[in-house]
Amino acid sequence: VRDWSRRRLVITAGPTREHLDPVRYLSNESSGRMGWALAETAHKRGARVTLVTGPTSFPDPKGVTVIRVVNARDMLAATRKAAHHAHAVIGAAAVADWRPHRVSRTKLKKRSTAPVIRLVANPDILATLSKERRGPFPRMAGFALESNNLLANAQEKMRLKNLDLVVANSPRALGSVRTRAILIQTGRPPHRFSGDKKRLADLILSNLLEGIRSHD
Amino acid sequence: VRDWSRRRLVITAGPTREHLDPVRYLSNESSGRMGWALAETAHKRGARVTLVTGPTSFPDPKGVTVIRVVNARDMLAATRKAAHHAHAVIGAAAVADWRPHRVSRTKLKKRSTAPVIRLVANPDILATLSKERRGPFPRMAGFALESNNLLANAQEKMRLKNLDLVVANSPRALGSVRTRAILIQTGRPPHRFSGDKKRLADLILSNLLEGIRSHD
Repeated sequence: VRDWSRRRLVITAGPTREHLDPVRYLSNESSGRMGWALAETAHKRGARVTLVTGPTSFPDPKGVTVIRVVNARDMLAATRKAAHHAHAVIGAAAVADWRPHRVSRTKLKKRSTAPVIRLVANPDILATLSKERRGPFPRMAGFALESNNLLANAQEKMRLKNLDLVVANSPRALGSVRTRAILIQTGRPPHRFSGDKKRLADLILSNLLEGIRSHD
Repeated sequence: VRDWSRRRLVITAGPTREHLDPVRYLSNESSGRMGWALAETAHKRGARVTLVTGPTSFPDPKGVTVIRVVNARDMLAATRKAAHHAHAVIGAAAVADWRPHRVSRTKLKKRSTAPVIRLVANPDILATLSKERRGPFPRMAGFALESNNLLANAQEKMRLKNLDLVVANSPRALGSVRTRAILIQTGRPPHRFSGDKKRLADLILSNLLEGIRSHD
């Protein structure tokens, strides 16, 4: 049995919500299940886990430090802080790519003409933290959700964001218990996986934490 | 103890989700708690309840017919069908006022320029069904969520949509257990309420079902 005690791990999970006004927001289908599976598996094997999560309906996993956030910018701030001394960061959150360029402080009134929402890009959490790192730590893993050209798009994402590991899957994975995925790592052939998210969590963690000694 | 057996009631609950693409959507903070409280209270008192609900994290209430939908147009279709022989319809759902004018069949790619989302108005479920009714049934009740001018805006909504009862509250009510509200009915002074959503459910049902005989 693998023992990952003293490995410090930061995991992001869930969707983010990007508000238009106090009640309306833009979000996505992520349930947080993959992040929870990663956090629970890593904790069981002895790792010290911080879970930075957007809104989900799951209770806090036991033994894990949980930081709950709403939007992408808050998730970046919390993840950056937690990642400071971490061996690895796994971005399992489905961070909203965009947010409304303006948030109304009062609920937008229904008018005769429907509004047009101008969006602006959110920061890319993994790309930002990967650019900021000096040295091999934290190792960084991300997910690539692609409706088509799964492998090619995921490999491109890995290169652009300078990640150590990418898990490519289709939008069907969102919210489900089982999933199909391709694990991509530098210098290794892509590894195809089909099964439940707990087994996938184990595979990701084994690959990402491999060879990290507890005194690193 | 009131007995509402044979009263047929349709309740809408939760938020709706209005998709931009297979994974992204526009939604709101509604939890479904108010609709669940109404459905459970009505069922306990003997009513036959159909609950038409958007995505929530609550399990189906016992003894209630539950129809799960995603967006406003599907909620309108399901509610219209269920309301056909109902004594009352209570719109406790926070139906999205707008939806993206176009839904992409594949996940929108992150591009150098962020997209602009053109919205179009969703149908107003209560206003539509109220316009379609011939005679006093179904009686119709709705909620008015207003950040300011609570009473005036809610009375205007009641008139425009031709409702029998309106519950006015502030966006703070969304997702919470306790709530403050004003009950508005034709020919009666506004009634101020503060307490948990189960007690509010009881008050709404008592007022709305009052005087309906079981053979109506």
